[in-house]
Amino acid sequence: MRTSSRGDVDPFIVMDVMEAARAAEDAGRSIIHMEVGQPGTGAPQGALTALTADLAQPLGYTVGLGLPALRARIAQHYGEVHDVDLDPARVVVTAGASGAFVLAFSALFDNDARVGLGLPCYPSYRQILKAMGLRPVEIATTAQGRYQPQPDDVATNDLAGLIVASPANPTGTMLNAPELDALAQACAARDVALISDEIYHGISYGTRAVSALEVTQDCYVINSFSKYFSMTGWRVGWMVVPADHVRQVERLAQNLFICAPHASQRLALHAMDCRPELDANLAVYQANRTLLLDGLAQAGFTTMAPPDGAFYIYADVSAHTDDSRAFAADILARAGVAVTPGLDFDPVDGHRWLRLSYAGATSDMVEGLARLRRYMAARG
Amino acid sequence: MRTSSRGDVDPFIVMDVMEAARAAEDAGRSIIHMEVGQPGTGAPQGALTALTADLAQPLGYTVGLGLPALRARIAQHYGEVHDVDLDPARVVVTAGASGAFVLAFSALFDNDARVGLGLPCYPSYRQILKAMGLRPVEIATTAQGRYQPQPDDVATNDLAGLIVASPANPTGTMLNAPELDALAQACAARDVALISDEIYHGISYGTRAVSALEVTQDCYVINSFSKYFSMTGWRVGWMVVPADHVRQVERLAQNLFICAPHASQRLALHAMDCRPELDANLAVYQANRTLLLDGLAQAGFTTMAPPDGAFYIYADVSAHTDDSRAFAADILARAGVAVTPGLDFDPVDGHRWLRLSYAGATSDMVEGLARLRRYMAARG
Repeated sequence: MRTSSRGDVDPFIVMDVMEAARAAEDAGRSIIHMEVGQPGTGAPQGALTALTADLAQPLGYTVGLGLPALRARIAQHYGEVHDVDLDPARVVVTAGASGAFVLAFSALFDNDARVGLGLPCYPSYRQILKAMGLRPVEIATTAQGRYQPQPDDVATNDLAGLIVASPANPTGTMLNAPELDALAQACAARDVALISDEIYHGISYGTRAVSALEVTQDCYVINSFSKYFSMTGWRVGWMVVPADHVRQVERLAQNLFICAPHASQRLALHAMDCRPELDANLAVYQANRTLLLDGLAQAGFTTMAPPDGAFYIYADVSAHTDDSRAFAADILARAGVAVTPGLDFDPVDGHRWLRLSYAGATSDMVEGLARLRRYMAARG
Repeated sequence: MRTSSRGDVDPFIVMDVMEAARAAEDAGRSIIHMEVGQPGTGAPQGALTALTADLAQPLGYTVGLGLPALRARIAQHYGEVHDVDLDPARVVVTAGASGAFVLAFSALFDNDARVGLGLPCYPSYRQILKAMGLRPVEIATTAQGRYQPQPDDVATNDLAGLIVASPANPTGTMLNAPELDALAQACAARDVALISDEIYHGISYGTRAVSALEVTQDCYVINSFSKYFSMTGWRVGWMVVPADHVRQVERLAQNLFICAPHASQRLALHAMDCRPELDANLAVYQANRTLLLDGLAQAGFTTMAPPDGAFYIYADVSAHTDDSRAFAADILARAGVAVTPGLDFDPVDGHRWLRLSYAGATSDMVEGLARLRRYMAARG
């Protein structure tokens, strides 16, 4: 039976790492998980309790754009956190950030459109674009540029769109307001659609992450309840679109998704009132980050992207290997620590990088570091 | 800011009807809902109780293809209901049937591929295809052909794929095994991918619906927990694909969705053991159907597609109007009954058809029929 060529996307390497880790655990080994990009915690307890009460009523379809109360609460959030006065009509509740990307790409781009992304980046940007008949355009970045695309890249790549992420995955670097503004202006000058992935907002250390909505209304902003709100498995996120795009996005959402999961939407609404519990999670990431920055250097991982936010450390391991995939497999096999090779995020230079997630428990981070130190010492 | 042309999909008319009905209710009017394609019931009680216990553990991402236990249970279902021995590895848990269509289309078709569908049909087939840069090819059907595409249509339309639905929405007609087999053979002869939408399986009257898997393994079968299992808002469904497509579909699912909602997957697994409650829902549809077939004829709606399954009646109203949209609006305004104009399902002939859903409570059906009888009598 026929298959498409656009569907022939790359494997998601972290998924293979997770599968290898699971197989090792099934065989009785202890594995420390520093591969997976999700909090070890679940949804906030207060929100789950409220959801249990909601389950007494049938949870049918919601309207395509999402529960009005949730859209209003998200708009209010932009006032509280970003001092942005946002019309709730511009908020679209989505089936996770993943669903938001599918919606954004279909609303913005026609077949074979060129969409830019700075390497390294979240691997699914490339694969979703490809699966939808669009062309990912990989943009090289630099350490000086904090691994983010630059305004000049917009001009030189003949783009229809540009995806930026701040805090970024895997590097954790952030864009400040002048940097975001310069990118937004470069995009506006050439009718390039700016898509700002803000999924790691709320998880930053020292400096608050800036939303693209603070510098322009002419963009798509994508966010999710998976990270700060610790609700990965519930598959609910949101998108903010320009006012004159709402009707088109609504029609697409109705047809492509009908709606985001209803229970997840309710849980998300409840979760927005659970900040103390969520900020306690954040304090754990903060402690883990400090622990890792210090401990990884001692283990011999000395060069890293500056992790301003998110819960990852992207480490340059070129002093130790030019094959990060084999290196990660060896670390799993011999140290019992699951880490992700950089190739997932960067097909060009990822062979000399690893991503380590510190979204887990601090006790796991302590043990993982000890194992990595022993492994690197034995390696010599 | 730019928008795409492929994203410029048609409005989902039933959504506009629902909005008008809601506005009328907000204004204090009583409205009988015969427009919406979802059960009035919620998820099975036994399943909800079991889910509440599951919530004690964090529900993170599942693997991309879905919970292994759910995939195994779905495979078992094909043995129990269809006498098909199905490898669980071929089952993909999806974010509703909607998510299954997005996955199937990206796995099967490249940009501008022609995909056939018989009119009338579920409107989102056309819109999802368009939003993904593919070309819906509308195939005329006949009453003699039970409003289903015919094997000859495969040859004459230069197709890359064909979507069939049995029981169909909006007509409720079913394809028997020889009919499905003839379509499958016509598709196989020309390397046309056959996609069988079986979302209304479990809801049929008199005859069990046949799965395409009973006649061929060379097809994509799409199903959902939304209809028979009464779980619309939970956004969980499934797809069965050929064995040699699993790996490509898995990669696409990981990247496009990460996973279907975890709680919904667990609820679905529990729901599969709640057949007595679900069969009680079915008995209500059965009673409603009998009531409507009789009562609608008395009201003056005399020509209908044969509703073998699903919970719709598709009525030819050409004796009363050549503008089904205005007719539906008038019925809502003057009779207080929300119905869907056929234009949602058939842009060619839908102006002379209405779809009535009988998925609601029997008492609502009785009242809706009384209102329709009075309305038609007053109309003369």
